[in-house]
Parts: sequence; C-alpha cells; structure tokens
Amino acid sequence: MTLPLAVSMGDPAGIGPEVIAKAWASRDAHRLPCFFAVGDVRAVGAVWSGPVERIDDPARAAAVFGRALPVLSVADGGSIVPGRPDTEGADCTLQSLELAAGLARSGAAAGLVTGPVSKGELYRIGFTYPGQTEFVAERCGVARENAVMMLAGPTLRVVPLTIHEAIADVPRLLTTELVVARARATVRGLMLDFGIAAPRLAVAGLNPHAGEGGAIGREEIDVLAPAIARLRGDGIDIVGPLAADTMFHPRARARYDAALCPTHDQALIPIKTLHFDDGVNITLGLPIVRTSPDHGTAFDIAGEDRAEPGAMIAAIAMAGQAAARRAAAR
Amino acid sequence: MTLPLAVSMGDPAGIGPEVIAKAWASRDAHRLPCFFAVGDVRAVGAVWSGPVERIDDPARAAAVFGRALPVLSVADGGSIVPGRPDTEGADCTLQSLELAAGLARSGAAAGLVTGPVSKGELYRIGFTYPGQTEFVAERCGVARENAVMMLAGPTLRVVPLTIHEAIADVPRLLTTELVVARARATVRGLMLDFGIAAPRLAVAGLNPHAGEGGAIGREEIDVLAPAIARLRGDGIDIVGPLAADTMFHPRARARYDAALCPTHDQALIPIKTLHFDDGVNITLGLPIVRTSPDHGTAFDIAGEDRAEPGAMIAAIAMAGQAAARRAAAR
Repeated sequence: MTLPLAVSMGDPAGIGPEVIAKAWASRDAHRLPCFFAVGDVRAVGAVWSGPVERIDDPARAAAVFGRALPVLSVADGGSIVPGRPDTEGADCTLQSLELAAGLARSGAAAGLVTGPVSKGELYRIGFTYPGQTEFVAERCGVARENAVMMLAGPTLRVVPLTIHEAIADVPRLLTTELVVARARATVRGLMLDFGIAAPRLAVAGLNPHAGEGGAIGREEIDVLAPAIARLRGDGIDIVGPLAADTMFHPRARARYDAALCPTHDQALIPIKTLHFDDGVNITLGLPIVRTSPDHGTAFDIAGEDRAEPGAMIAAIAMAGQAAARRAAAR
Repeated sequence: MTLPLAVSMGDPAGIGPEVIAKAWASRDAHRLPCFFAVGDVRAVGAVWSGPVERIDDPARAAAVFGRALPVLSVADGGSIVPGRPDTEGADCTLQSLELAAGLARSGAAAGLVTGPVSKGELYRIGFTYPGQTEFVAERCGVARENAVMMLAGPTLRVVPLTIHEAIADVPRLLTTELVVARARATVRGLMLDFGIAAPRLAVAGLNPHAGEGGAIGREEIDVLAPAIARLRGDGIDIVGPLAADTMFHPRARARYDAALCPTHDQALIPIKTLHFDDGVNITLGLPIVRTSPDHGTAFDIAGEDRAEPGAMIAAIAMAGQAAARRAAAR
C-alpha cells in the first residue's frame, strides 16, 4: 500500500487550511496522491464547507481520502478567527509541524508538505529557527547547512546560495565551501527526488555580468570559479559563473536542470516572475521528502475564499512524485 | 514632414547591420517609422542581400525608405569580416555613434537608436565612457547621473538604481539622493516618452523581503524609505520598498508603470526573463529620444543570418512613438 503524505496546516488563521481543503477538492483533476492534513480540524471548518473527517492514525487516511479530507487533529484549544493569528494558533502551528514531520520521519507518512506559517507569530512562542526548513532539518538529524532550499516550477528550478542575508553580508558569506556543498546536495536531490540521472547545473555570478572578468567585483574569480572547478573534478556537469540576467529566458533555461544563485533575489525573482502561482519550495538533503507551497499565510485574505490553491496542489503533487521515486529506488 | 530616426550600426563586425537590415525588411509588418542607418554601408552588404541606398543627407531618407534601407555612410576604411572585430571597425563604430547622436541633437533626425557596440573594442581606441549612454548624455550636455537607463518591454519597465557596480559596493553607492534623482527622471520620462499622465512607481528593497523591518539589513529604513517619503512629498505616486521577488508576476506588474531596483540584476533578471527578445533600453532625461536593443554584438553568430531582429524592431518602434509624443507636445 502506498503511504499517504502528511500536510501540516501551517498557521490556523492563515490560508493554509483553505488551500489544503481546496487541494483535496481538486484531487481527481490533478491526480493528487493520498494525503491527510495535520492541524486543528476546526480551522478547516471555519473556511470551507466540504467534507472533513478526523482520523487518529495516518493508516486511516487512504480509506477516508476518497470521500473527505482526512485530518489528524492537534490541540483543539483557543478560538480560531481567520486572519487573526494568536498565541494558541502559533502553538497549534508548531504542534502540527512537529507531528507531521515526525510521522514522515518515522515512516508513517510518505513525505511532508508544510503549510504556510508566520515566523513572527512563532518567534513569540519561543521558536528559534530561521524557518520551517531548519526545524525540519534538525528533527531529521541533518545540519542546517546541508539542507538545501530549492524553488521549483514547471519550467525552472533555482537554489539560492545565501537566503535571508543582508546584501552587505553576502560577499563575506559566499564561500567556495558553501557553493560546493550546496551544489553537491542539489545534484543528489535532482537525482533522488526528480529522477534526473545526470543533473546539469548552472551557477550565476554575484556581480552584474558575472563580474566581467574582474572589472565589476572579484567573487566570480576568487570564490565561484574555484568551486565550479572542484565540482567538475567530481564529474558534475556544471557551467558558470554566468551573467544572472541572461540565464532565465526560455532558451537559457533549457540548458540546465537547476540554477544556483548567490543572492536570494537572483533566485527568487525569476521563479516568482514565472511561477508565482505554482512554485514549490522543496528541501533537498533530508532523509524525508519535504515540500511547501511558495507563499505565506496571507492573513489579509484568510477566510474570504479567495486563496489560490495552485501552489499547494503543486507542492502535494511534487512531494508525491518524489516519494514515489524514493520508494522505487529502495 | 515627420523626421526620420537615426540608427547607428554599432560594431560593423557584430549583428547590428544585420538586425537593422532585417528591421527595415519588416517595416510594413511592424509599421515602423522612417529611419536610416549610420555606419559603413559595406557592413550591411556583407551580411544581407536586400536593397541598400546611400544617402548624404537625412532629409533624403524619406524618399528612399520605401524601396531600400537608407544608409548614411561613414569611414569606408579597412575590411569588414562579420564576427571579427578590429580597430578600424571600432573607429567606425564610434564615428557612427557620434554622427547619429549629433543628427538627433541638431534636429536633423527625430531620435537616436544605437546598435550594439563592444566596449572592449572601443576601450582599445581610447573610448573612456562606461557605455554608449554616458557618451550620448555628454554629447547632449547632460550630466551622466541625470541620464537614466530604463529597460522596457511590452509588460514591464524597470530602472536599475545602480548599474555596473560590484555588489560589495552597492550598499555604499545606494543613497537617498540617488534614488530621488533617478525616480524624478523616471517620472519625467514616463510622461514625456510614454505619454503616461500620472506615472506610478514601485521601489524594490535591496535586501531579501525588503529587509523585513530591519531584520535583514537596514538600507530600506535608512535610505529607501526617506527617498520614498521625499518623492511622495513631491506628489509622486510611489510605493515601496517592496520585496523584489514578489514584484514581477503579472498581477504585481499591473500595479506600477516602472519598477526601480537597487541592483542591476534585480532589474535586469525580470525584464530579460520576460522580454529577452523584445526588451528595449531607453535613456530617460536626455533632450533627445534615445533607445537601443537590449542585446550585445553577438560576434559569435554575426554573418550567419541567425540574428533575431525583434529587439531592434522594438527599439525603433519605441523611439518612433516617443519622438511622435515629444513632437506633439511641443
């Protein structure tokens, strides 16, 4: 029997419960694999009138999935008002994430899809991680620097080499070791979760026009080129450093399986320009499959039935495909 | 009578002559305004078999344009081999640019479209400007900091606030004064050359997520917000600093007429991702209209009849529209 995916609801006052419910409603149209939500069952009822069924065990999800959204419920405490996050909601967010991650880690779920959380709300209850990715990595026993964030859409995959760092700090943080580690994890992830036998990587320069041979900054020469040389030495198919601005038009995108970019915006701008509604955040380098829709809690539209489920649908579909590939490879 | 546009050929060994000739050949399909090329007439003949006619005076262009590409020829010295730039070609490049700019400045041409040049080749003959834009600005008596580069495509216009600067230098170079000056020139340009009565601007943050309230860098608070406040004080419709990664999907683009971005790549990545083949570089803040196709000399494909004329066609069309608006406003 195929295992179900565990989908943590994220903040119960955000759009997580709504997009999960809408994804379930479109399960046939998008041929989604079996999944169950993890969170406060009332959060779904507050924003959606479709069928919901509580389950106590992930093994029950398959029997329920055809007729109702299966929900493994946690922490029915406090009231839930869409668009109004509070402390009880943050507690529930964290419990959902912890339980869903634990189920994926233990093998009771095929993989983990995480709904959108508010870091601000989580920080108030003592959460100390930069984001869900680092939390999940730790729960999996993986050092956070080895868990790699990839954003993936139908026509582009990108990996930011630095993430939530001030631009002034990026030249210092961008090291040859960092690039090598991220590139290696990316190659493994493309093989394991995407079934690409010989992944092709492209590395963007940090500076405009990739530095024009040292005329506009030296990070390409001092940091990126040595990293690329080492990776080539490993037999990895990798090009760069390339001018970032000419890497993302359709003909350029066809030449690589993933683009590695020194800054957050170099990676996130093209993926969100092209795939704002169906971009998926997938964490490479973990012992479990983990994806997430590439959007936030959108408290401003929560409860208004306006949230687009496209990214959640894409995240569930991608997790299902990756889990199936891993299962087949075992 | 409507004046013709002057189109400098750029490097005679690059793809400039070919894309200009192809643009002429498609003049009816794209309803292009009358233009003439400025450069070595033999550079066109070397890569194109269509009709070419030398003219000695821009006033002759209109009579010729219907039957042949009018060329105001300069400097028939040296041999021309497509894909093989040389010193004579660089001399010719510079003479073409100087003559075409002068004709636009003197009012003999309606505006200036510049073909692609090789800065490396120009530097070898003593050219000391960062690019054609700064050269043209000086010939127009405009300080280079007041000449603003905008990249414009059918669905997006962007202005990089810093251009060919190393990322490590950007935090120091990004000042409130710079942002205010560029924004004001952008507003004037959108009114004058694009006919937008009340331009709406959006400013991107320098740091990921626009700094998240100071958590990821302070340039948004210390530099960008004060600039935006001053511009609002001028009555300018401007929002920001916004997270750069979520500014460029279709719904977001509909909310502004131009996006101002702190770094080169923040601006150039989205425009080239979306409009690689029809993006136009237009210089705002000059007394003349000046556009340029947003690509280089492409020496590697010169003479092979493979160059796409889309960007040159778009540059000529945009220059024609801007010139007509300026003429009507006079």
